[in-house]
Amino acid sequence: MGQIILASASPRRKELLEQIGISFEVCPAKGEEMITSTLPSAVVSELSAQKAREVAGMLKQYGDSHRELMTPQDMMVLGADTVVSVDNQILGKPKNEADAARMLRMLSGRTHEVYTGVTIVLMSKSGKAGEHTFYEKTAVTMREMSDEEIERYVATGEPMDKAGAYGIQGKCAIYIDKIEGDYNNVVGLPVSAIYHVLKNLGIDWYLW
Amino acid sequence: MGQIILASASPRRKELLEQIGISFEVCPAKGEEMITSTLPSAVVSELSAQKAREVAGMLKQYGDSHRELMTPQDMMVLGADTVVSVDNQILGKPKNEADAARMLRMLSGRTHEVYTGVTIVLMSKSGKAGEHTFYEKTAVTMREMSDEEIERYVATGEPMDKAGAYGIQGKCAIYIDKIEGDYNNVVGLPVSAIYHVLKNLGIDWYLW
Repeated sequence: MGQIILASASPRRKELLEQIGISFEVCPAKGEEMITSTLPSAVVSELSAQKAREVAGMLKQYGDSHRELMTPQDMMVLGADTVVSVDNQILGKPKNEADAARMLRMLSGRTHEVYTGVTIVLMSKSGKAGEHTFYEKTAVTMREMSDEEIERYVATGEPMDKAGAYGIQGKCAIYIDKIEGDYNNVVGLPVSAIYHVLKNLGIDWYLW
Repeated sequence: MGQIILASASPRRKELLEQIGISFEVCPAKGEEMITSTLPSAVVSELSAQKAREVAGMLKQYGDSHRELMTPQDMMVLGADTVVSVDNQILGKPKNEADAARMLRMLSGRTHEVYTGVTIVLMSKSGKAGEHTFYEKTAVTMREMSDEEIERYVATGEPMDKAGAYGIQGKCAIYIDKIEGDYNNVVGLPVSAIYHVLKNLGIDWYLW
């Protein structure tokens, strides 16, 4: 069996892969993020590709320079990037607590979109090599949050490392009215779409 | 502050309350379940009310008979019941592996509804007493599952204690195409709706 590498430090992405029973290693990308587009779907696709390529390049280089020590193995590198989009604005992670409160006021009482881009880089001696990038979109409707509720939620510290300043799988759950689409895409990794993209490529994710 | 009692043995409901930071005790209802309706919304409402009332009655009796030992406390008892509905049939928990596979074949490649009924029994010296029952509905669209995929999923053991024979928060995540509504309602407890029903009653769930 080959190796699966998650090119992300996000604990939530890690938990999702564990939840569905995939064996993997974590090797986060560290490079500078460069975007040339302002369209959310293009932004997340660019960033997921940069992350996956960076880690795949590093692993290839390491493998090439240690060829005498290692058994060559098939590799699958997964890169992902998630943003929140509202009013044609892209919300990434908040800079500080005031910025988190500003983002939550923008999202309160209405519907926004969450985009996650995924890039799968396949490195294989047996022919299944290539790069596949796609994105998934989910609509999220938030209930009205009062200033006091926003303040209370920001005080939990949860918004600080999350795109759009909220964690749907955390304490923000009480403010989510409904979603339309894939929940795990909002958490940060559309595992159902990944499984089926691989299946369409003739790859059983569990037997890679 | 008063006490919050979850009248359910479901580990998933427990995890959801922990996720949002509610302090509670577990005291599962044990009584026989009696239904008089075949409508999913009525069934889950009846069953959640039976569970909450049974546990509330037990706690009240215990409190009354140990009055000299205990400080009277405000109590909130939460009962919940979840079913899956497809083709006007209600799916509860599967009887065995063959039954689980039968249910999954019914759900494969189409949309079904998940209903969770919630009953909140409030016992309070300060006037906030009463019983409140409501239900929440979420539409879940499953991707096509092949016979091999159904067999593999049933072999994980995950379907056996779950209405409709699947756990959206477990290994079945890869077969969920999308949902419309509240995700946590499918997991088994619509915490957002509960928070807001209580808020409309003038109760801050976190300060009960």
